[in-house]
Amino acid sequence: MTMDRNPNRIEVCLSPAMYDRYADDENIVVVVDILRATSSICAAFDNGVNKIIPVSTVEEAREMKAKGYTVASERDGYVLDFADFGNSPFNFTKERVAGKDIVYSTTNGTRTINMASHSKKVVVGSFLNLTAVANWIKQQNAPVLIFCASWKDRFSLEDTVFAGALAEKLLESDKFHTICDSALAALDLWEKAKPDLQSYIQKAAQKARLASKGLDDCIDYCHTPDTSEVIPVYDNKCLVLES
Amino acid sequence: MTMDRNPNRIEVCLSPAMYDRYADDENIVVVVDILRATSSICAAFDNGVNKIIPVSTVEEAREMKAKGYTVASERDGYVLDFADFGNSPFNFTKERVAGKDIVYSTTNGTRTINMASHSKKVVVGSFLNLTAVANWIKQQNAPVLIFCASWKDRFSLEDTVFAGALAEKLLESDKFHTICDSALAALDLWEKAKPDLQSYIQKAAQKARLASKGLDDCIDYCHTPDTSEVIPVYDNKCLVLES
Repeated sequence: MTMDRNPNRIEVCLSPAMYDRYADDENIVVVVDILRATSSICAAFDNGVNKIIPVSTVEEAREMKAKGYTVASERDGYVLDFADFGNSPFNFTKERVAGKDIVYSTTNGTRTINMASHSKKVVVGSFLNLTAVANWIKQQNAPVLIFCASWKDRFSLEDTVFAGALAEKLLESDKFHTICDSALAALDLWEKAKPDLQSYIQKAAQKARLASKGLDDCIDYCHTPDTSEVIPVYDNKCLVLES
Repeated sequence: MTMDRNPNRIEVCLSPAMYDRYADDENIVVVVDILRATSSICAAFDNGVNKIIPVSTVEEAREMKAKGYTVASERDGYVLDFADFGNSPFNFTKERVAGKDIVYSTTNGTRTINMASHSKKVVVGSFLNLTAVANWIKQQNAPVLIFCASWKDRFSLEDTVFAGALAEKLLESDKFHTICDSALAALDLWEKAKPDLQSYIQKAAQKARLASKGLDDCIDYCHTPDTSEVIPVYDNKCLVLES
Protein backbone atom coordinates (compact mmCIF):
# COMPACT_ATOMS: atom_id res chain seq x y z
CA MET A 1 0.00 0.00 0.00
CA THR A 2 1.38 3.39 -0.98
CA MET A 3 1.98 6.06 1.69
CA ASP A 4 1.11 8.97 -0.58
CA ARG A 5 -2.63 9.09 -1.36
CA ASN A 6 -2.28 12.05 -3.75
CA PRO A 7 -3.65 11.01 -7.17
CA ASN A 8 -0.91 13.07 -8.85
CA ARG A 9 1.91 11.20 -7.15
CA ILE A 10 4.94 9.70 -8.82
CA GLU A 11 6.60 6.81 -7.00
CA VAL A 12 9.45 4.52 -7.90
CA CYS A 13 9.71 0.90 -6.78
CA LEU A 14 13.37 -0.11 -7.05
CA SER A 15 12.92 -3.88 -6.89
CA PRO A 16 10.15 -6.50 -7.08
CA ALA A 17 11.11 -7.38 -3.47
CA MET A 18 9.56 -4.06 -2.39
CA TYR A 19 6.53 -4.10 -4.69
CA ASP A 20 3.87 -4.86 -2.08
CA ARG A 21 4.72 -1.52 -0.39
CA TYR A 22 3.68 0.36 -3.55
CA ALA A 23 0.94 -1.79 -5.08
CA ASP A 24 -2.31 0.08 -5.67
CA ASP A 25 -5.12 -0.87 -8.05
CA GLU A 26 -5.38 2.82 -9.05
CA ASN A 27 -1.80 3.03 -10.31
CA ILE A 28 -0.55 3.33 -13.82
CA VAL A 29 2.51 1.10 -13.56
CA VAL A 30 5.42 1.63 -15.91
CA VAL A 31 7.41 -1.60 -15.99
CA VAL A 32 11.12 -1.08 -16.65
CA ASP A 33 13.74 -3.68 -17.52
CA ILE A 34 16.20 -1.75 -19.64
CA LEU A 35 18.62 -4.70 -20.07
CA ARG A 36 16.76 -6.13 -21.85
CA ALA A 37 13.09 -7.12 -21.62
CA THR A 38 11.29 -3.80 -21.94
CA SER A 39 13.72 -2.54 -24.59
CA SER A 40 13.06 -5.75 -26.54
CA ILE A 41 9.29 -5.42 -26.21
CA CYS A 42 9.45 -1.91 -27.64
CA ALA A 43 11.66 -3.18 -30.49
CA ALA A 44 9.16 -5.97 -31.20
CA PHE A 45 6.23 -3.55 -31.49
CA ASP A 46 8.34 -1.27 -33.64
CA ASN A 47 8.79 -4.24 -35.93
CA GLY A 48 5.10 -4.97 -36.13
CA VAL A 49 4.47 -7.74 -33.61
CA ASN A 50 0.72 -8.19 -33.13
CA LYS A 51 0.70 -9.32 -29.50
CA ILE A 52 3.20 -10.37 -26.85
CA ILE A 53 2.07 -12.90 -24.29
CA PRO A 54 4.26 -12.54 -21.19
CA VAL A 55 4.59 -15.72 -19.15
CA SER A 56 6.43 -15.91 -15.84
CA THR A 57 7.66 -19.49 -15.74
CA VAL A 58 9.73 -21.69 -18.02
CA GLU A 59 7.00 -24.34 -17.80
CA GLU A 60 4.36 -21.99 -19.20
CA ALA A 61 6.71 -20.96 -22.00
CA ARG A 62 7.33 -24.62 -22.87
CA GLU A 63 3.61 -25.39 -22.94
CA MET A 64 2.97 -22.45 -25.25
CA LYS A 65 5.73 -23.67 -27.58
CA ALA A 66 4.01 -27.08 -27.70
CA LYS A 67 0.80 -25.29 -28.72
CA GLY A 68 2.59 -23.83 -31.74
CA TYR A 69 3.54 -20.34 -30.58
CA THR A 70 6.80 -18.63 -31.42
CA VAL A 71 8.57 -18.36 -28.08
CA ALA A 72 11.25 -15.92 -26.95
CA SER A 73 12.65 -17.12 -23.65
CA GLU A 74 15.80 -16.96 -21.62
CA ARG A 75 17.05 -17.40 -18.09
CA ASP A 76 20.21 -15.66 -16.88
CA GLY A 77 21.05 -14.65 -20.43
CA TYR A 78 20.80 -18.15 -21.92
CA VAL A 79 18.21 -19.02 -24.56
CA LEU A 80 16.13 -21.96 -23.38
CA ASP A 81 16.55 -25.07 -25.51
CA PHE A 82 12.95 -25.17 -26.72
CA ALA A 83 12.72 -21.43 -27.49
CA ASP A 84 12.90 -19.86 -30.95
CA PHE A 85 15.14 -17.05 -29.74
CA GLY A 86 16.26 -15.14 -26.65
CA ASN A 87 16.01 -11.72 -25.13
CA SER A 88 18.13 -9.42 -27.29
CA PRO A 89 16.13 -6.61 -28.91
CA PHE A 90 18.01 -7.51 -32.11
CA ASN A 91 16.23 -10.88 -32.15
CA PHE A 92 12.79 -9.35 -32.59
CA THR A 93 13.21 -8.62 -36.31
CA LYS A 94 10.41 -7.76 -38.73
CA GLU A 95 10.93 -11.15 -40.41
CA ARG A 96 10.39 -12.99 -37.15
CA VAL A 97 7.65 -11.00 -35.47
CA ALA A 98 5.58 -8.87 -37.89
CA GLY A 99 1.90 -9.71 -37.57
CA LYS A 100 2.54 -12.51 -35.07
CA ASP A 101 1.65 -13.34 -31.48
CA ILE A 102 4.88 -14.03 -29.56
CA VAL A 103 5.22 -15.72 -26.17
CA TYR A 104 7.87 -14.08 -24.04
CA SER A 105 9.48 -15.14 -20.77
CA THR A 106 12.61 -13.66 -19.20
CA THR A 107 14.48 -13.79 -15.90
CA ASN A 108 12.95 -10.63 -14.47
CA GLY A 109 10.94 -8.54 -16.91
CA THR A 110 7.88 -10.64 -17.68
CA ARG A 111 7.48 -11.68 -14.04
CA THR A 112 7.35 -8.00 -13.12
CA ILE A 113 4.66 -7.31 -15.73
CA ASN A 114 2.55 -10.09 -14.29
CA MET A 115 3.06 -8.86 -10.71
CA ALA A 116 1.68 -5.46 -11.69
CA SER A 117 -1.24 -6.81 -13.72
CA HIS A 118 -3.81 -5.92 -11.02
CA SER A 119 -3.14 -2.22 -11.61
CA LYS A 120 -5.33 0.25 -13.49
CA LYS A 121 -2.93 0.11 -16.40
CA VAL A 122 0.46 -1.47 -17.06
CA VAL A 123 2.65 0.13 -19.71
CA VAL A 124 6.08 -0.91 -20.94
CA GLY A 125 8.80 1.72 -20.63
CA SER A 126 12.33 1.90 -22.01
CA PHE A 127 14.67 4.58 -23.29
CA LEU A 128 13.41 3.70 -26.80
CA ASN A 129 9.93 5.09 -26.06
CA LEU A 130 10.80 7.46 -23.17
CA THR A 131 9.14 10.64 -24.43
CA ALA A 132 6.22 8.77 -25.99
CA VAL A 133 5.43 7.07 -22.66
CA ALA A 134 5.78 10.33 -20.74
CA ASN A 135 3.39 12.10 -23.10
CA TRP A 136 0.90 9.26 -22.93
CA ILE A 137 0.96 9.22 -19.11
CA LYS A 138 0.33 12.96 -19.00
CA GLN A 139 -2.96 12.34 -20.79
CA GLN A 140 -4.13 9.83 -18.17
CA ASN A 141 -5.59 10.66 -14.80
CA ALA A 142 -3.93 8.33 -12.36
CA PRO A 143 -0.99 8.08 -9.97
CA VAL A 144 2.18 6.71 -11.53
CA LEU A 145 4.42 3.96 -10.23
CA ILE A 146 7.66 3.35 -12.10
CA PHE A 147 8.47 -0.28 -11.35
CA CYS A 148 12.06 -1.42 -11.87
CA ALA A 149 12.24 -5.13 -12.71
CA SER A 150 15.88 -5.07 -11.66
CA TRP A 151 17.74 -8.36 -11.42
CA LYS A 152 16.68 -11.16 -9.10
CA ASP A 153 14.97 -8.90 -6.59
CA ARG A 154 17.99 -6.61 -6.24
CA PHE A 155 18.63 -3.06 -7.43
CA SER A 156 19.64 -2.12 -10.99
CA LEU A 157 21.40 1.07 -11.88
CA GLU A 158 20.13 1.24 -15.48
CA ASP A 159 16.47 0.74 -14.48
CA THR A 160 16.75 3.36 -11.75
CA VAL A 161 18.41 5.89 -14.05
CA PHE A 162 15.55 5.38 -16.51
CA ALA A 163 13.06 5.91 -13.68
CA GLY A 164 14.75 9.25 -13.04
CA ALA A 165 14.59 10.21 -16.72
CA LEU A 166 10.88 9.43 -16.87
CA ALA A 167 10.13 11.15 -13.56
CA GLU A 168 11.94 14.26 -14.82
CA LYS A 169 9.76 14.37 -17.94
CA LEU A 170 6.57 13.91 -15.92
CA LEU A 171 7.53 16.60 -13.41
CA GLU A 172 7.82 19.09 -16.28
CA SER A 173 4.04 19.03 -16.02
CA ASP A 174 2.56 20.80 -12.99
CA LYS A 175 0.16 17.91 -12.77
CA PHE A 176 2.67 15.66 -11.00
CA HIS A 177 4.53 15.74 -7.73
CA THR A 178 6.70 13.35 -5.74
CA ILE A 179 7.58 12.87 -2.08
CA CYS A 180 9.01 9.41 -2.69
CA ASP A 181 12.66 8.96 -1.63
CA SER A 182 13.39 6.45 -4.37
CA ALA A 183 11.99 8.82 -7.02
CA LEU A 184 14.19 11.61 -5.60
CA ALA A 185 17.24 9.33 -5.68
CA ALA A 186 16.42 8.23 -9.24
CA LEU A 187 16.17 11.89 -10.32
CA ASP A 188 19.60 12.62 -8.82
CA LEU A 189 21.15 9.56 -10.47
CA TRP A 190 19.64 10.55 -13.81
CA GLU A 191 21.03 14.08 -13.41
CA LYS A 192 24.48 12.52 -12.99
CA ALA A 193 24.04 10.04 -15.87
CA LYS A 194 22.32 12.34 -18.36
CA PRO A 195 25.32 14.25 -19.79
CA ASP A 196 26.81 10.95 -21.02
CA LEU A 197 24.43 8.07 -20.41
CA GLN A 198 26.41 5.56 -22.47
CA SER A 199 29.53 6.11 -20.37
CA TYR A 200 27.67 6.24 -17.08
CA ILE A 201 26.04 2.88 -17.59
CA GLN A 202 29.34 1.08 -18.26
CA LYS A 203 29.69 0.44 -14.54
CA ALA A 204 26.32 -1.31 -14.16
CA ALA A 205 26.50 -4.92 -12.98
CA GLN A 206 24.03 -6.12 -15.61
CA LYS A 207 26.25 -4.65 -18.32
CA ALA A 208 29.12 -6.76 -16.95
CA ARG A 209 26.89 -9.83 -16.73
CA LEU A 210 25.85 -9.47 -20.38
CA ALA A 211 29.44 -8.78 -21.47
CA SER A 212 30.63 -11.97 -19.79
CA LYS A 213 28.24 -13.88 -22.09
CA GLY A 214 28.94 -11.79 -25.21
CA LEU A 215 25.43 -10.30 -25.00
CA ASP A 216 26.36 -6.65 -24.52
CA ASP A 217 26.08 -5.60 -28.17
CA CYS A 218 22.72 -3.99 -27.37
CA ILE A 219 23.89 -1.67 -24.57
CA ASP A 220 24.03 1.46 -26.73
CA TYR A 221 20.74 0.61 -28.44
CA CYS A 222 18.98 0.13 -25.09
CA HIS A 223 20.25 3.50 -23.80
CA THR A 224 19.37 5.63 -26.81
CA PRO A 225 16.29 7.73 -26.02
CA ASP A 226 13.33 8.26 -28.28
CA THR A 227 13.87 5.97 -31.23
CA SER A 228 10.31 4.70 -30.97
CA GLU A 229 6.75 5.95 -30.42
CA VAL A 230 5.17 2.68 -29.34
CA ILE A 231 3.00 2.42 -26.21
CA PRO A 232 2.75 -1.28 -25.29
CA VAL A 233 0.09 -1.87 -22.65
CA TYR A 234 -1.11 -4.94 -20.81
CA ASP A 235 -4.61 -5.95 -21.79
CA ASN A 236 -6.37 -9.27 -21.28
CA LYS A 237 -3.14 -11.11 -20.35
CA CYS A 238 -1.31 -9.81 -23.41
CA LEU A 239 0.79 -6.82 -24.37
CA VAL A 240 -0.74 -4.91 -27.25
CA LEU A 241 -0.32 -1.45 -28.70
CA GLU A 242 -2.44 1.14 -26.90
CA SER A 243 -5.30 1.91 -29.25
CA MET B 1 23.13 -15.14 -1.11
CA THR B 2 25.51 -12.56 -2.46
CA MET B 3 26.57 -12.60 -6.14
CA ASP B 4 30.10 -11.36 -5.47
CA ARG B 5 32.24 -14.01 -3.73
CA ASN B 6 35.24 -11.69 -3.39
CA PRO B 7 36.16 -11.40 0.32
CA ASN B 8 37.06 -7.73 -0.24
CA ARG B 9 33.64 -6.82 -1.56
CA ILE B 10 31.50 -3.92 -0.41
CA GLU B 11 27.77 -4.31 -0.97
CA VAL B 12 24.80 -2.16 0.01
CA CYS B 13 21.37 -3.56 0.83
CA LEU B 14 18.87 -0.73 0.38
CA SER B 15 15.96 -2.24 2.30
CA PRO B 16 15.20 -5.16 4.63
CA ALA B 17 12.87 -6.42 1.86
CA MET B 18 16.00 -7.27 -0.17
CA TYR B 19 18.15 -8.62 2.65
CA ASP B 20 17.97 -12.31 1.78
CA ARG B 21 19.74 -11.50 -1.50
CA TYR B 22 22.79 -10.24 0.42
CA ALA B 23 22.83 -12.33 3.61
CA ASP B 24 26.10 -14.17 4.17
CA ASP B 25 27.44 -15.55 7.45
CA GLU B 26 30.88 -14.22 6.48
CA ASN B 27 29.74 -10.59 6.27
CA ILE B 28 30.52 -7.73 8.55
CA VAL B 29 27.14 -5.98 8.48
CA VAL B 30 26.93 -2.27 9.18
CA VAL B 31 23.36 -1.54 10.22
CA VAL B 32 22.20 1.97 9.32
CA ASP B 33 19.10 3.80 10.48
CA ILE B 34 20.18 7.44 10.45
CA LEU B 35 16.76 8.79 11.50
CA ARG B 36 17.03 7.77 14.25
CA ALA B 37 17.92 4.36 15.72
CA THR B 38 21.59 3.97 14.87
CA SER B 39 22.31 7.65 15.61
CA SER B 40 20.62 7.18 18.99
CA ILE B 41 22.59 4.02 19.76
CA CYS B 42 25.85 5.87 19.12
CA ALA B 43 24.65 8.74 21.34
CA ALA B 44 23.80 6.27 24.11
CA PHE B 45 27.27 4.70 24.06
CA ASP B 46 28.82 8.16 23.97
CA ASN B 47 26.88 8.82 27.16
CA GLY B 48 28.13 5.68 28.84
CA VAL B 49 25.37 3.13 28.42
CA ASN B 50 26.64 -0.31 29.44
CA LYS B 51 24.57 -2.46 27.11
CA ILE B 52 21.68 -2.04 24.69
CA ILE B 53 19.35 -4.98 24.26
CA PRO B 54 17.60 -4.63 20.89
CA VAL B 55 14.19 -6.29 20.73
CA SER B 56 12.09 -6.49 17.57
CA THR B 57 8.55 -6.54 18.89
CA VAL B 58 6.47 -4.35 21.17
CA GLU B 59 5.55 -7.43 23.19
CA GLU B 60 9.18 -8.22 23.99
CA ALA B 61 9.78 -4.61 25.00
CA ARG B 62 6.77 -4.71 27.32
CA GLU B 63 7.96 -7.94 28.94
CA MET B 64 11.39 -6.46 29.54
CA LYS B 65 9.83 -3.40 31.15
CA ALA B 66 7.89 -5.71 33.49
CA LYS B 67 11.22 -7.32 34.42
CA GLY B 68 12.50 -3.93 35.54
CA TYR B 69 14.56 -2.75 32.59
CA THR B 70 14.66 0.84 31.37
CA VAL B 71 12.97 0.69 27.98
CA ALA B 72 13.31 3.01 24.97
CA SER B 73 10.61 2.16 22.51
CA GLU B 74 8.58 3.78 19.77
CA ARG B 75 6.50 2.90 16.76
CA ASP B 76 6.00 5.36 13.91
CA GLY B 77 7.54 8.12 15.99
CA TYR B 78 5.29 7.65 19.00
CA VAL B 79 6.68 6.62 22.38
CA LEU B 80 4.89 3.49 23.58
CA ASP B 81 2.84 4.02 26.71
CA PHE B 82 4.86 1.65 28.89
CA ALA B 83 8.27 2.91 27.70
CA ASP B 84 10.58 5.24 29.64
CA PHE B 85 11.40 7.28 26.57
CA GLY B 86 11.43 7.17 22.76
CA ASN B 87 13.86 7.18 19.90
CA SER B 88 15.43 10.64 19.80
CA PRO B 89 19.19 10.62 20.34
CA PHE B 90 18.57 13.50 22.76
CA ASN B 91 16.70 11.12 25.06
CA PHE B 92 19.74 8.96 25.74
CA THR B 93 21.31 11.37 28.21
CA LYS B 94 24.12 10.55 30.65
CA GLU B 95 21.63 10.86 33.53
CA ARG B 96 19.37 8.25 32.01
CA VAL B 97 21.77 5.73 30.52
CA ALA B 98 25.26 5.87 32.06
CA GLY B 99 26.25 2.45 33.40
CA LYS B 100 22.85 0.93 32.61
CA ASP B 101 21.46 -1.84 30.41
CA ILE B 102 18.75 -0.35 28.18
CA VAL B 103 16.14 -2.26 26.19
CA TYR B 104 15.50 -0.67 22.80
CA SER B 105 12.82 -1.32 20.19
CA THR B 106 12.03 0.88 17.19
CA THR B 107 9.97 0.74 14.01
CA ASN B 108 12.82 -0.33 11.75
CA GLY B 109 16.27 -0.18 13.31
CA THR B 110 16.28 -2.88 15.95
CA ARG B 111 14.46 -5.32 13.67
CA THR B 112 17.24 -4.85 11.13
CA ILE B 113 19.93 -5.54 13.75
CA ASN B 114 18.21 -8.77 14.65
CA MET B 115 17.83 -9.79 10.98
CA ALA B 116 21.58 -9.46 10.52
CA SER B 117 22.52 -11.22 13.76
CA HIS B 118 23.63 -14.43 11.97
CA SER B 119 26.52 -12.53 10.38
CA LYS B 120 30.19 -12.69 11.33
CA LYS B 121 29.85 -9.30 13.00
CA VAL B 122 27.15 -6.65 13.24
CA VAL B 123 28.24 -3.07 13.87
CA VAL B 124 26.13 0.05 14.28
CA GLY B 125 26.88 2.88 11.85
CA SER B 126 25.77 6.49 11.75
CA PHE B 127 27.25 9.82 10.70
CA LEU B 128 28.26 10.28 14.36
CA ASN B 129 30.82 7.47 14.16
CA LEU B 130 31.42 7.40 10.38
CA THR B 131 35.22 7.59 10.33
CA ALA B 132 35.58 5.44 13.45
CA VAL B 133 33.51 2.66 11.88
CA ALA B 134 35.41 2.91 8.60
CA ASN B 135 38.76 2.63 10.37
CA TRP B 136 37.55 -0.28 12.46
CA ILE B 137 36.29 -2.15 9.36
CA LYS B 138 39.62 -1.65 7.62
CA GLN B 139 41.27 -3.64 10.43
CA GLN B 140 38.94 -6.61 9.96
CA ASN B 141 39.25 -9.27 7.28
CA ALA B 142 35.78 -9.78 5.96
CA PRO B 143 33.41 -8.65 3.22
CA VAL B 144 31.25 -5.67 4.14
CA LEU B 145 27.51 -5.29 3.76
CA ILE B 146 26.05 -1.87 4.55
CA PHE B 147 22.45 -2.64 5.49
CA CYS B 148 19.96 0.26 5.35
CA ALA B 149 17.10 -0.24 7.80
CA SER B 150 15.07 2.23 5.77
CA TRP B 151 11.42 2.70 6.64
CA LYS B 152 8.90 -0.14 6.53
CA ASP B 153 10.77 -2.16 3.91
CA ARG B 154 11.07 0.81 1.55
CA PHE B 155 14.05 2.93 0.51
CA SER B 156 15.47 5.81 2.57
CA LEU B 157 17.52 8.61 1.13
CA GLU B 158 19.41 9.40 4.33
CA ASP B 159 20.44 5.77 4.95
CA THR B 160 21.58 5.39 1.35
CA VAL B 161 23.59 8.62 1.41
CA PHE B 162 25.33 7.37 4.56
CA ALA B 163 26.06 4.07 2.80
CA GLY B 164 27.77 6.08 0.07
CA ALA B 165 29.80 8.06 2.60
CA LEU B 166 31.01 4.89 4.32
CA ALA B 167 31.72 3.10 1.01
CA GLU B 168 33.78 6.10 -0.10
CA LYS B 169 35.91 5.91 3.06
CA LEU B 170 36.42 2.16 2.67
CA LEU B 171 37.35 2.47 -1.00
CA GLU B 172 40.16 4.85 -0.03
CA SER B 173 41.85 1.62 1.01
CA ASP B 174 43.03 -0.60 -1.86
CA LYS B 175 41.77 -3.52 0.18
CA PHE B 176 38.16 -2.99 -0.91
CA HIS B 177 36.30 -3.08 -4.19
CA THR B 178 32.65 -2.98 -5.25
CA ILE B 179 30.69 -4.23 -8.25
CA CYS B 180 27.35 -3.74 -6.50
CA ASP B 181 24.90 -1.43 -8.28
CA SER B 182 23.37 -0.15 -5.05
CA ALA B 183 26.83 0.69 -3.67
CA LEU B 184 27.61 2.57 -6.90
CA ALA B 185 24.30 4.45 -6.67
CA ALA B 186 24.93 5.26 -2.99
CA LEU B 187 28.37 6.63 -3.88
CA ASP B 188 26.85 8.88 -6.54
CA LEU B 189 24.13 10.11 -4.18
CA TRP B 190 26.73 10.84 -1.50
CA GLU B 191 28.80 12.77 -4.04
CA LYS B 192 25.75 14.93 -4.70
CA ALA B 193 24.85 15.32 -1.00
CA LYS B 194 28.34 15.82 0.38
CA PRO B 195 28.91 19.54 -0.36
CA ASP B 196 25.90 20.42 1.79
CA LEU B 197 24.49 17.35 3.51
CA GLN B 198 22.14 19.27 5.81
CA SER B 199 20.42 20.93 2.84
CA TYR B 200 20.37 17.80 0.71
CA ILE B 201 18.59 15.77 3.34
CA GLN B 202 15.75 18.28 3.71
CA LYS B 203 13.87 16.53 0.93
CA ALA B 204 13.93 13.09 2.58
CA ALA B 205 10.53 11.62 3.38
CA GLN B 206 11.58 10.56 6.89
CA LYS B 207 12.57 14.17 7.62
CA ALA B 208 9.03 15.22 6.65
CA ARG B 209 7.52 12.41 8.73
CA LEU B 210 9.47 13.50 11.81
CA ALA B 211 8.66 17.17 11.21
CA SER B 212 4.95 16.38 11.07
CA LYS B 213 5.28 15.05 14.63
CA GLY B 214 7.63 17.76 15.87
CA LEU B 215 10.46 15.24 16.08
CA ASP B 216 12.86 16.78 13.57
CA ASP B 217 15.02 18.67 16.06
CA CYS B 218 17.69 15.99 15.70
CA ILE B 219 18.14 16.20 11.91
CA ASP B 220 21.31 18.30 12.04
CA TYR B 221 22.73 16.22 14.88
CA CYS B 222 22.11 12.97 12.99
CA HIS B 223 23.84 14.31 9.87
CA THR B 224 26.98 15.72 11.50
CA PRO B 225 29.93 13.41 10.80
CA ASP B 226 32.50 12.27 13.30
CA THR B 227 31.30 13.54 16.64
CA SER B 228 31.89 10.12 18.21
CA GLU B 229 34.44 7.30 18.27
CA VAL B 230 32.17 4.52 19.55
CA ILE B 231 32.00 1.11 17.84
CA PRO B 232 28.82 -0.60 19.05
CA VAL B 233 28.77 -4.27 18.06
CA TYR B 234 26.26 -7.04 18.50
CA ASP B 235 27.42 -9.70 20.92
CA ASN B 236 25.40 -12.34 22.73
CA LYS B 237 22.04 -10.68 21.89
CA CYS B 238 23.20 -7.27 23.10
CA LEU B 239 24.93 -4.22 21.68
CA VAL B 240 28.13 -3.49 23.54
CA LEU B 241 31.24 -1.45 22.86
CA GLU B 242 33.80 -3.32 20.79
CA SER B 243 36.57 -4.29 23.15
